[in-house]
Amino acid sequence: MSVDRLIEAIEAKKNPTVLGLDPYPDHIPPEILDKHAAKHGQTLKTLQGAYKEYIFALIDALHDLVPAVKLQSACYESLGPGGVEVLRQGVLRARKKGLYVIVDAKRGDIGSTSKAYSSAYLGRVELGDTLIPVFDADGLTVNPYLGSDNLDPFLKDCKMYDKMIFVLCKTSNRSSSEVQELMAGDRPLYRVIAEQVSRAGRQLAGKYGYLNTAIVAGATQPSAIRQLRKDHPELFFLVPGYGAQGGKAEDIAAAFDKQGRGAVVNNSRGICCAWQKDDSVPFTEAARKAAIGMRGDLQKAIR
Amino acid sequence: MSVDRLIEAIEAKKNPTVLGLDPYPDHIPPEILDKHAAKHGQTLKTLQGAYKEYIFALIDALHDLVPAVKLQSACYESLGPGGVEVLRQGVLRARKKGLYVIVDAKRGDIGSTSKAYSSAYLGRVELGDTLIPVFDADGLTVNPYLGSDNLDPFLKDCKMYDKMIFVLCKTSNRSSSEVQELMAGDRPLYRVIAEQVSRAGRQLAGKYGYLNTAIVAGATQPSAIRQLRKDHPELFFLVPGYGAQGGKAEDIAAAFDKQGRGAVVNNSRGICCAWQKDDSVPFTEAARKAAIGMRGDLQKAIR
Repeated sequence: MSVDRLIEAIEAKKNPTVLGLDPYPDHIPPEILDKHAAKHGQTLKTLQGAYKEYIFALIDALHDLVPAVKLQSACYESLGPGGVEVLRQGVLRARKKGLYVIVDAKRGDIGSTSKAYSSAYLGRVELGDTLIPVFDADGLTVNPYLGSDNLDPFLKDCKMYDKMIFVLCKTSNRSSSEVQELMAGDRPLYRVIAEQVSRAGRQLAGKYGYLNTAIVAGATQPSAIRQLRKDHPELFFLVPGYGAQGGKAEDIAAAFDKQGRGAVVNNSRGICCAWQKDDSVPFTEAARKAAIGMRGDLQKAIR
Repeated sequence: MSVDRLIEAIEAKKNPTVLGLDPYPDHIPPEILDKHAAKHGQTLKTLQGAYKEYIFALIDALHDLVPAVKLQSACYESLGPGGVEVLRQGVLRARKKGLYVIVDAKRGDIGSTSKAYSSAYLGRVELGDTLIPVFDADGLTVNPYLGSDNLDPFLKDCKMYDKMIFVLCKTSNRSSSEVQELMAGDRPLYRVIAEQVSRAGRQLAGKYGYLNTAIVAGATQPSAIRQLRKDHPELFFLVPGYGAQGGKAEDIAAAFDKQGRGAVVNNSRGICCAWQKDDSVPFTEAARKAAIGMRGDLQKAIR
């Protein structure tokens, strides 16, 4: 089961960190940006080349430290089709390095449309009797607003191709309460969503008791994390918002079970932009140091 | 104001129809598919070429009949970066033909990420002191699950570049009730969302009284349409689900105001796949006939 592979990758590296590959122009070390600008000027090609060099270097430098990467689709889409090609190549590169790859695209639509999204990111596209992989990630983030017929095509591909979905439940941003904490009956909406995710994935359980249908619960929401863990010992958590967004190791300890399993914690800027605070070493070295520091903090908090 | 341009385009063509460009392999006339397959075999290139020829032909054949097109991003993403390039070219082609162009991507994320999505689809990407347009559509569909800091970057671009967002409120799919009709206090969630959208757009009102922040309300949800129109005379509606999904002209009459304004109605398969029921004429001719029929049905129902 896909969730078992993720858990085993975490245990092999003793590290539940997901390296977030969310490039923005001001995240890229100037020497990389300048090199591509010298060739392509102030164009999207400059950013496409720079993003590719930057994420490939990070993948190559950190693949022995972290079990997984998460690529934020928006960053790549913002560079147009050529940026989406960098996303595709990033997924490929990370998988080749043995990493578990999550595409953070937060897709969600009516059933027939979700099928197209699922084919793109998790499954295969059908052309006659040929099945063609497109992005072929291990996992995808999914938005729950459209209900179960949105989830169904993703579930089918999770089963057929052994993949995971991570459904938005309680997100890390400040205004997440505006919708996600509306009281639906006696419970906030995010708890209802978690219940739906659990029901949807009940036939996709792995050997450690977790499902291939996981949820997103932000590091900035410690009380929601505690509540969700109590409600759903069977749901694996993707925890964004660690570091730059304010989430701390002790805030997320409750996401983990007694065996230290149950969650992966994403950090993007805190690792990838560590060079901005420590320019005495190459940027990949600064990222490694930051990742090692985070691993230590998480290990201490979980213990 | 962007919403005024949309309203005036509708009035110029006496037609509130949005042509939905949501290609799937089985929507493409076999002669087009075969032509590209002869060159590229069973590959994504075949579908990319076929989708491009198909949507360009539909845009060229129907641009005098309909005021707007909506491109479903999932269909293009499912073909990888080369498919996303077809999406980009489709947006360009349609804008050149004077059409109002909505990208149906249902994006939504935390603020910094939404900014990247908004830059891609509505605004400009910054590189040094250069501002680069990427997809540059007139409007984008947005998912409300993450709350107001998700909406903020889109609002900024709506203001700066005179664009529209269409926020998912009550969608056309069967399971939309599972989340969208949960009771939040005394009202179903979708009414709370509409309230948030109205508040977000209050400084973006056009001369006909509608805001640049619009909502999506499915043609299959006539009672929700009535309720939303009563709650919010200031919100423009994008109404999907007409035709193949079951929505009828009389179901959506309530979306329109006394002047016959207030909504656009999307139809994808009902127009684009009309050739499957009428192969006596070229597929573009079958699409024109279907579009003319729909225009008549809507005019009758709105009157």
